[in-house]
Amino acid sequence: MNLDYETPLFFRVMEYAADAGESDREWPAVGDAAAGEVIDMVSGNPDWGPPEALREGLREYADLGADAFQYPPSEGLLELREEIAARRNVDTEQVVVTNGAGEANYLAMAAALEVADGDEVILTDPVYPYYPGKTNMLGADATFVPTEDDGRLDPAAVRERASEETALIVVNTPNNPTGAVYDEATVRELVAVAEDHEATLLCDEVYDHFDFSGRFESALTIDSDHRIVTNAFSKSMAITGLRVGYAVFPPGIVDRAKSRHMLVNVAGSRPAQYAVLKALRETPPEYYARNRETMAERVDTFTDALDEAGAEYTRPDGAFYVMARFDGFPGTLDNVFQLIDEAGVAGMPGEAFGTAREDWIRFALVTPQVEAAAARLAEYF
Amino acid sequence: MNLDYETPLFFRVMEYAADAGESDREWPAVGDAAAGEVIDMVSGNPDWGPPEALREGLREYADLGADAFQYPPSEGLLELREEIAARRNVDTEQVVVTNGAGEANYLAMAAALEVADGDEVILTDPVYPYYPGKTNMLGADATFVPTEDDGRLDPAAVRERASEETALIVVNTPNNPTGAVYDEATVRELVAVAEDHEATLLCDEVYDHFDFSGRFESALTIDSDHRIVTNAFSKSMAITGLRVGYAVFPPGIVDRAKSRHMLVNVAGSRPAQYAVLKALRETPPEYYARNRETMAERVDTFTDALDEAGAEYTRPDGAFYVMARFDGFPGTLDNVFQLIDEAGVAGMPGEAFGTAREDWIRFALVTPQVEAAAARLAEYF
Repeated sequence: MNLDYETPLFFRVMEYAADAGESDREWPAVGDAAAGEVIDMVSGNPDWGPPEALREGLREYADLGADAFQYPPSEGLLELREEIAARRNVDTEQVVVTNGAGEANYLAMAAALEVADGDEVILTDPVYPYYPGKTNMLGADATFVPTEDDGRLDPAAVRERASEETALIVVNTPNNPTGAVYDEATVRELVAVAEDHEATLLCDEVYDHFDFSGRFESALTIDSDHRIVTNAFSKSMAITGLRVGYAVFPPGIVDRAKSRHMLVNVAGSRPAQYAVLKALRETPPEYYARNRETMAERVDTFTDALDEAGAEYTRPDGAFYVMARFDGFPGTLDNVFQLIDEAGVAGMPGEAFGTAREDWIRFALVTPQVEAAAARLAEYF
Repeated sequence: MNLDYETPLFFRVMEYAADAGESDREWPAVGDAAAGEVIDMVSGNPDWGPPEALREGLREYADLGADAFQYPPSEGLLELREEIAARRNVDTEQVVVTNGAGEANYLAMAAALEVADGDEVILTDPVYPYYPGKTNMLGADATFVPTEDDGRLDPAAVRERASEETALIVVNTPNNPTGAVYDEATVRELVAVAEDHEATLLCDEVYDHFDFSGRFESALTIDSDHRIVTNAFSKSMAITGLRVGYAVFPPGIVDRAKSRHMLVNVAGSRPAQYAVLKALRETPPEYYARNRETMAERVDTFTDALDEAGAEYTRPDGAFYVMARFDGFPGTLDNVFQLIDEAGVAGMPGEAFGTAREDWIRFALVTPQVEAAAARLAEYF
């Protein structure tokens, strides 16, 4: 098994940043960032907290009878699946509630590979590292299509790469790490490529609530037996630790995915599903709008500072991240460590996301200290 | 993929029982079982409710800050792993917290198969149906060793069956469905068989708190690089729906299991882990003792009625189940349906557990209506 997935590198950077934070080193104190504090722009964990109804759901659950603490249906609480199906305009039978988007992607990739003749998985470069990790675990072969410089994916490049060996195409929109949001024409053509090769398009839309461009188009709007959409409440409700996600499968392969889900996990955790159901029903649109606006403002603040620092970057259309390249300072792990030591800002080295962006550094904007980080970077470069 | 695992059959029986309960049929009203009510002895869901500290843990969690709602460490909350490691006298690094025993068994089987030369999995007959289901999903070959008539497993029979093809031996003690508890000599010899064939013994001990015999011996007491022990809090804390389990791996394969866990699930659900940690620390021994005693009393009540009904059965030494055989009434699905219709008692057909007990019916004693069920069965036969 290939162990080359995100977290080990992620943990190494986090550990290094923690150690630096505990040293007697100091960096410019700006805003609420103290002089001795490293600003964490490594992880994609939302910092704004879950909706109140989510907390209330956990409290309600704690007082339920003995039965409510037993197995939920394997494919998820029926009311949660119905609520998801109604919102996404799909049949409840197509929805499997999973242990986060992580399991949703695993089930989707496994099911698509099982029904395909070939065993090639087309991924993008840069890529979210779990996709090649899962590809390797499932015994399939990854092939990479480079994105455009601004992170957009040209579906013609995917069509050119696709062959009779192609079982699966995996994309993520809004995209981690590039911030690209695929428009409707792109998504439609990606589905068509999958159809034309008897393959499956897997579209991971976990950042769908964080589209700043207004151009985001869910693959669910394109009806096809050759596309699977995955999602989760991890980012939209700021609950990456609750592990509630879902996948929407074509009717022909949903039973296969349910089987694997049952054999791997039996079911997901019930209090988490119960609380998400309540939050889904009761959280006002303002909660989601406010967090999206906060993120858009942070993008402004941070990219202004990158301009000041003379860095190259692409302004994200969605998701949580900005990738930047500093002249003469490629985004190696060593330089990421140096940036922690000398500027007090921790990012992720671009090499974690494939070869196309190995000179870049990814900064996650899920911290209230974006302004302070921007000031430190502008001063350092 | 083979879809022949427990739940579909389980659901069919549950559905049939629910339909019968909604009909205008009536059976003897006994104790708290109303005349129109089918007594559910199908599922293994504890009926006595979680410890109070578990509920309190969920309430506490609901009030924590935004950070506490984000990813726990992939391998589980460190304090939970430490608490488990201290209780089981193993190194914290060997412990992976999983999404219930279901995921623990999946990770264990996958890791053991990856490091083995052969791809044969030795299972018992009767068998807990998830084991052959997982074996098939992992592309390995199951071979079955029949247990003794009373459910005991003769390790000599396992040794006779083992070969250079053997990668894994999977056992469950206390046993579902037979109620057998393997003594120390049996467990020791099973580990030796695994060692002698460069294979792994997987010992699923999820019912370890329900040993009525005093003879239960955990495989953890036998130090070996060739055994994995899985467990969960599902039965001991009456929380099958929270999905918190764990596996204890030999140092040589624990990283492999952590990788797969990360690639499949990223992490388990954090509120569930938090609540289990609190319950593990604060629940008095009386909680566990009381539930074990309740179960032992139900065994007495139920087997007395089986004596009266002239049924053949093995008195369980542990776990939640009694298997019984009624003269001229083999435990087929049709007869299980007939028993629901005519006696108002729902059990599981023996054919769900392999071939050795297809004439038998499994009754789960996790209902306060065991006495009423016993009376109905004694009257019916």
